[in-house]
Amino acid sequence: MYDVIIIGAGAAGLTAAIYTCRKKLKTLIVSIDVGGQTNVTSHIENYPGTGAMHGVELMRRFQDEAVGFGAELIMGKANKVEKIENKFKVFLANGEAYECKGLILAYGKVPKSLGIEGEEKFMGRGVSTCVTCDLPLYKNRDVAVIGGGNSAVEGALESATIAKKVYLVHRRDAFRADEVTVEKLKNNPRIELIFNSVPTKVIGEKNVDGIEVENIITKERKALKVDGIFIEIGYVVDTSFVQHLVKVNEKKEIIVDERGNTSHPGIFACGDITPVPFKQTVIAAGEGAKSALECYRWLTGGKGAVLDWTH
Amino acid sequence: MYDVIIIGAGAAGLTAAIYTCRKKLKTLIVSIDVGGQTNVTSHIENYPGTGAMHGVELMRRFQDEAVGFGAELIMGKANKVEKIENKFKVFLANGEAYECKGLILAYGKVPKSLGIEGEEKFMGRGVSTCVTCDLPLYKNRDVAVIGGGNSAVEGALESATIAKKVYLVHRRDAFRADEVTVEKLKNNPRIELIFNSVPTKVIGEKNVDGIEVENIITKERKALKVDGIFIEIGYVVDTSFVQHLVKVNEKKEIIVDERGNTSHPGIFACGDITPVPFKQTVIAAGEGAKSALECYRWLTGGKGAVLDWTH
Repeated sequence: MYDVIIIGAGAAGLTAAIYTCRKKLKTLIVSIDVGGQTNVTSHIENYPGTGAMHGVELMRRFQDEAVGFGAELIMGKANKVEKIENKFKVFLANGEAYECKGLILAYGKVPKSLGIEGEEKFMGRGVSTCVTCDLPLYKNRDVAVIGGGNSAVEGALESATIAKKVYLVHRRDAFRADEVTVEKLKNNPRIELIFNSVPTKVIGEKNVDGIEVENIITKERKALKVDGIFIEIGYVVDTSFVQHLVKVNEKKEIIVDERGNTSHPGIFACGDITPVPFKQTVIAAGEGAKSALECYRWLTGGKGAVLDWTH
Repeated sequence: MYDVIIIGAGAAGLTAAIYTCRKKLKTLIVSIDVGGQTNVTSHIENYPGTGAMHGVELMRRFQDEAVGFGAELIMGKANKVEKIENKFKVFLANGEAYECKGLILAYGKVPKSLGIEGEEKFMGRGVSTCVTCDLPLYKNRDVAVIGGGNSAVEGALESATIAKKVYLVHRRDAFRADEVTVEKLKNNPRIELIFNSVPTKVIGEKNVDGIEVENIITKERKALKVDGIFIEIGYVVDTSFVQHLVKVNEKKEIIVDERGNTSHPGIFACGDITPVPFKQTVIAAGEGAKSALECYRWLTGGKGAVLDWTH
């Protein structure tokens, strides 16, 4: 039983964890990645106080601090939340479940998913949505990058600097990226382009062993033997699994007050999953701190000590 | 003529400056200090990404970044703002005045002032509200610390480590600080306690030469020859000089929307001068970023280029 579960480990979620831990709340973070949207900024200059660095490095610092103050971090995709008496039960795609008294939703924009078998099961454990974050795991191994936009093309090029073999799986037969970049792609001997194809299944028992793809013209399916899969098909707000508990706006963003309270007592939200303007790391961090302190206030009834919510 | 004037150089104001400068807005910061309330935290651990450090050091980093991106910084107390056609004119206590198209109010809680002659004139130039920030200027020189609370007592002890002579001027004849601390104070040969006394005038022409104090029992006045004066009598929200332009709440805090807009177009506010909950550095920084980006949006009519507001 945790005092607080935070779903999401971007700037908002990790800052919330720093604050809840410093209030001595037993805190669990559940996330499919560490760093969220900040990771995709290779040179972040406008987060005050740290100087310029890669977004991944900045988010590692946030993570180190949150974990240093006592937060537990579990990689996995939360896909169900139930209110049970005075507790919330958070279910992960792999079947695990955890309970808490206060819940902070901070998982921001999430990478669009393929919606195929095995994807959720291996999310954060072989299936990744962040090349820069997870590529070091695949030195001299084989990976597939899924997508045809700029981030997919650049992700494939980046992957080819470390991985042995890179499949780039694209549903069309051409890329929209600029010519220079596409030329680089075509001339790279480590990269194999799989055109007119969509993934149909992540293959594997304990680990990812490969990905099955279907040619959308011939309907032929084949398995690509890979150790890692990077999904690079864009981002979206997805609040579907919490909409039975909290109110959302027309963009499906979770409505919060100025302290991070949602419409449901004990559930708080912060960062890009809310209508907060200007998607910036320092803004998300500030909102994370508010949510955490409001969660603390709520859990302690304003009295500064965690109440026993079991009765 | 500046695109933006930011009043205040705490976490909110400095972050706002980082953001306006990175949008290529010509930015002036006017402030009585650098660092604001963050300075008083000697060991700030919960600002994410930097590790623990003194608040003054963290705020110096913010300052270096803001100035590095092009912000100009002038020390001085803004005490009047006029709307003139499409511009705002900001007057300082020393008589200087600067014009801008957009105005960001970020001066937070301000140290309570003594309300005596010479105080505003020398604010930031011999009169200081932050011992830790400005003490290095007074190595082997003489200073007065005004106040009787914890921060005054600790400020006097800290001053005595660097200054040659320290007068602690207190309106009562005893301190509320704990006994151990008061003993240290009394046993320190560099510190002279001036009880039952209130300051009546800052003495000086170009620089601070001393402070005149009055014994409230005998009504006798005397001049203490000092080079620097630290006022340590608490903090307050003071929006008196902008209330003819912007709406304030019952606590005199400036009312803003979720993007930092005040009730007056072109005037924005952020940080502790607004009703933002939980006075935290990272929260103030986030609010500063919002105000700056909203100011940019307003100045450019949402088109991304600064409009000519002179017609």
